[in-house]
Amino acid sequence: MKRITSFLFSCLLSSGILFAQQGITQCGVPTGQSPFPVTVYAELPDPVKPLAQEWTAIKTPHISWGSTDVRYAKHVVPKLKQQNVLRLKAWRGERVNAQAVVWAGSEVSNLNCSLSEFKNNKGELLPAEAWSIGFIRYVMTDELNKDGKGACGHRSDHSLYDSLLVADPIDHVIESVPLTAMTTQPVWVKCQIPQSVAPGIYKGDLLVRDGERLLGKLKLELQISGRVLPVPSEWAYHLDLWQNPFAVARYYQVPLWSQAHLDAMRPLMKMLADAGQKIITASIMHKPWNGQTEDFFETMVTWMKRADGTWSFDYTVFDRWVEFMMNVGIDRQINCYSMVPWELSFQYFDQATNSLKSVKTAPGEKEYEDMWVAMLSSFSQHLREKGWFDICTIAMDERPMEVMQKTLEVIRKADPEFKVSLAGNYHAEIEPALYDYCISIGQEFPADVRMRRASEKKPTTYYTSCAEAYPNTFTFSDPAEAAWMSFYSAQKQLNGYLRWAYNSWPLEPLLDSRFRTWAGGDTYLVYPGARSSIRFEKLLEGIQAHEKITLLRKEFLDKGNKTGWKKIEKMLSTFRLENFPDIPAAVTVNHANEILNSF
Amino acid sequence: MKRITSFLFSCLLSSGILFAQQGITQCGVPTGQSPFPVTVYAELPDPVKPLAQEWTAIKTPHISWGSTDVRYAKHVVPKLKQQNVLRLKAWRGERVNAQAVVWAGSEVSNLNCSLSEFKNNKGELLPAEAWSIGFIRYVMTDELNKDGKGACGHRSDHSLYDSLLVADPIDHVIESVPLTAMTTQPVWVKCQIPQSVAPGIYKGDLLVRDGERLLGKLKLELQISGRVLPVPSEWAYHLDLWQNPFAVARYYQVPLWSQAHLDAMRPLMKMLADAGQKIITASIMHKPWNGQTEDFFETMVTWMKRADGTWSFDYTVFDRWVEFMMNVGIDRQINCYSMVPWELSFQYFDQATNSLKSVKTAPGEKEYEDMWVAMLSSFSQHLREKGWFDICTIAMDERPMEVMQKTLEVIRKADPEFKVSLAGNYHAEIEPALYDYCISIGQEFPADVRMRRASEKKPTTYYTSCAEAYPNTFTFSDPAEAAWMSFYSAQKQLNGYLRWAYNSWPLEPLLDSRFRTWAGGDTYLVYPGARSSIRFEKLLEGIQAHEKITLLRKEFLDKGNKTGWKKIEKMLSTFRLENFPDIPAAVTVNHANEILNSF
Repeated sequence: MKRITSFLFSCLLSSGILFAQQGITQCGVPTGQSPFPVTVYAELPDPVKPLAQEWTAIKTPHISWGSTDVRYAKHVVPKLKQQNVLRLKAWRGERVNAQAVVWAGSEVSNLNCSLSEFKNNKGELLPAEAWSIGFIRYVMTDELNKDGKGACGHRSDHSLYDSLLVADPIDHVIESVPLTAMTTQPVWVKCQIPQSVAPGIYKGDLLVRDGERLLGKLKLELQISGRVLPVPSEWAYHLDLWQNPFAVARYYQVPLWSQAHLDAMRPLMKMLADAGQKIITASIMHKPWNGQTEDFFETMVTWMKRADGTWSFDYTVFDRWVEFMMNVGIDRQINCYSMVPWELSFQYFDQATNSLKSVKTAPGEKEYEDMWVAMLSSFSQHLREKGWFDICTIAMDERPMEVMQKTLEVIRKADPEFKVSLAGNYHAEIEPALYDYCISIGQEFPADVRMRRASEKKPTTYYTSCAEAYPNTFTFSDPAEAAWMSFYSAQKQLNGYLRWAYNSWPLEPLLDSRFRTWAGGDTYLVYPGARSSIRFEKLLEGIQAHEKITLLRKEFLDKGNKTGWKKIEKMLSTFRLENFPDIPAAVTVNHANEILNSF
Repeated sequence: MKRITSFLFSCLLSSGILFAQQGITQCGVPTGQSPFPVTVYAELPDPVKPLAQEWTAIKTPHISWGSTDVRYAKHVVPKLKQQNVLRLKAWRGERVNAQAVVWAGSEVSNLNCSLSEFKNNKGELLPAEAWSIGFIRYVMTDELNKDGKGACGHRSDHSLYDSLLVADPIDHVIESVPLTAMTTQPVWVKCQIPQSVAPGIYKGDLLVRDGERLLGKLKLELQISGRVLPVPSEWAYHLDLWQNPFAVARYYQVPLWSQAHLDAMRPLMKMLADAGQKIITASIMHKPWNGQTEDFFETMVTWMKRADGTWSFDYTVFDRWVEFMMNVGIDRQINCYSMVPWELSFQYFDQATNSLKSVKTAPGEKEYEDMWVAMLSSFSQHLREKGWFDICTIAMDERPMEVMQKTLEVIRKADPEFKVSLAGNYHAEIEPALYDYCISIGQEFPADVRMRRASEKKPTTYYTSCAEAYPNTFTFSDPAEAAWMSFYSAQKQLNGYLRWAYNSWPLEPLLDSRFRTWAGGDTYLVYPGARSSIRFEKLLEGIQAHEKITLLRKEFLDKGNKTGWKKIEKMLSTFRLENFPDIPAAVTVNHANEILNSF
């Protein structure tokens, strides 16, 4: 028995091990339920047990507005000042969030929430469809590396890290929850303000009930300005969160690229489109990142070496994916990974032997050039036929300079008009050759380069990864850090932000955000069932702010409004990497939002 | 050490295990030389040691004509009556064989043989190119099953069977051999008589030397009749020895379907064409015989299930193989295996997952029908474009009647004009649907069926396999049994003969003819380096006789020569299965040949 227990609770490094009856998380924790839940599911037990004496004062269920900047712990009495009225400011077209908190010393068997009508003083309504309510759920996470300097590296033994249950997923799927005694239940309230609504203050209530019985209500006032935020598809913001369709197929247990697979992805990718995503992540070869995620990226291009020695390529999967994403609304750019994968090994179907084979070859070698010139020539022709050539980039991650230069030569040889993108360090030598250039947060584009790139309409962005302790979007990160990202991008006059993983889910992402490498949540921002998260909503808050800044800057420039311009730049100057971890991101972000909403 | 020894000498059931420096045979015997020799090689040690007292009388090297019906043992003094003159009869265009034997009590360091000029009494020459000389080599074999009733089944432990070194390969590659003391060395002399030569008796000598020193000479007289045997490509004989191109690629260590692969196969397949082979063996799916041979048959048709769910087929390999074989001279028929493989599992490349997948489905099921109708429709179109449709057959091995009937339905659904072939039992129910029908030697075609099939120009043949103890073509079989086959075929008025394995080589076919199943030599008739064998030459002797009989029967029928006709039928009636094993095949065959050469 001991051996089995130890097997179950130690972190499994191999993947996909499932019991017939019950799921098991990446870290070997049995989930006590069927694998891969999509609708109703139970959270993992909270390692933190409620302190009975703390809860004795809580006789009846308590209800208060909280802050969207806080992850309220599940079994701790929330430390907040009772707040019955919440006032929010927003532009028309903007999405705004609020977080209410319910906590109870004794059981609430059927907690549910609803909203009253929201009216302005002329009696005009904010339509009910604008609103959504979701219960915050709790997911297991770990922590930064022990040196506090980031979260990279392998985590072969999770017992070396703190395990804690954190508030992150926003569950819009369930309509009510049972609340056990001594439990806190946050509630996420979101309003997608229609662009057409009349400016003004709209007032209404959040009603909290146990079954039919009203437990209490909280007032919400939404002050909507005359300004209008465009729809996400029109945002200038260059959002690049890499999608992983393979994780969805595995989690939903549907055949790759089947209609069921597309159907499962649609709400998830629609959520991404609604956040302003502009780029389709495409894998044009087998394992561009050497299978670093639970579900590795398979090639969307079929590589075949024919028995006569010629190469043949088929784009059925690639087309299916791109057309699906465009249909969902993500249609501005296609980034194709990778000519320089993390392991320089290229798999193909070998017709002669009717088997999959791999060739190890590197930029600079004849075999590499022959193979990639054949591929890119064929690809270029296909993209041009599809009318996608101009929005497609051959995408690289950071590689040694010499390798990238040799890669660029091969691309030019195949088709000199190919656009190229890079996520890596800043390199003056190759910058002119890069269309979409994304550098690490710690680095800087020279001002003249950035300005020239802007005039050439080349996307110029930055990214964060496991390397940063702060700001980041781990499941335990301060939620405001996600919003902070885009203010920082605006300050640097960059077009947006990139993160490598929108949904590279671990085995049981709803239950356990930990993975075999990096800190919890590094590999994904959203959850199965197209559930959003505190992180993702705060990221969107920042993106909207960036878009507002872009519009205001243009307006102030056009109108010569120096006061307004200076106010924005001064506000942005408060976003400094050196703030972390001493000044909470929320302080800077909330102050900045106030200023933005003052115009 | 013991463990290693036991590993080395026990029969390895897994395949392909090689040491870097030295080959190892299928039965785990280290070969003491590099794996897969093509030119010079050393035979395995003879388990039979020479008896010194037997050899004491043999002071100088002895030389005599022997018989092509005998496999002379390597270390035994040959039991033969000294014969200095050999007289052979033949038609023009025929190939004739002779076997000389050299044996020596003491070492002959550099044994070599040559031929003098061969002249008739008018001084006309048989050209030197007509002749070839090869040394008989020795290969390891085993024996029939212990019950003597055949040689089928698994042979997991070869120590249960006799191991003996037998004379079989004919080595034309080496020009001389060193003869150790107390060794017998047979020499194979072959003449491909030109069709254009003048009839008459041609006389010459076989000269046997040690280096430059003449050891002796043997006289050979070739009596050539006025009759002419057509060239093999014009023979009516339907010879169907299944080719295994995969064994050649592995043995020669060349990439499948590369030019080097075709080059390695060319002399081997040319030898087959010269024996009158009419049929190209093609595999149209993965492992038609479930990998029963050392080198399994891979599909020559690329099966791809596209991500949109449709099937796609590519014929690059199939075309390459068929065109190669046609170029070699085997161009009358293409038999395509198999819609009913031994394991009803069908492998394909799955584009969506970029992997090889298998589907288990059987005739009668919708999935089977959908898949095969798609394949055969595509295949039919391809074959028609190539102009091969009329010579192509969809080929089956014996399956339960119901399965074969359902298979035929699917074929008809895809293209009712497809020809079908079967190697199996006789079934009246499906006989009309079968173009090329080959039954087991023990079975009979009803006379009316056989005659109708002949009038419809449908090939009707029989086969032998491991099931027969006699006649057969194991490496230890009486050589004349190989010739016997075709006389029997002629007696039954059949068009030819089928055997399932021309060259499904075991690991080291030149050294050890044993395999993990069946008796030694069951899986192949010829050797690497395009070396013929005693078995193959005797098989060809029978094929030539069958062709002669076909010609003579036609002539006697046309000319109303009842005496000749009866003489042939009487001769053929002596070929009875019941003769075995009491009457040696050589007795019947040699008598029959005398009669054939009397016309």
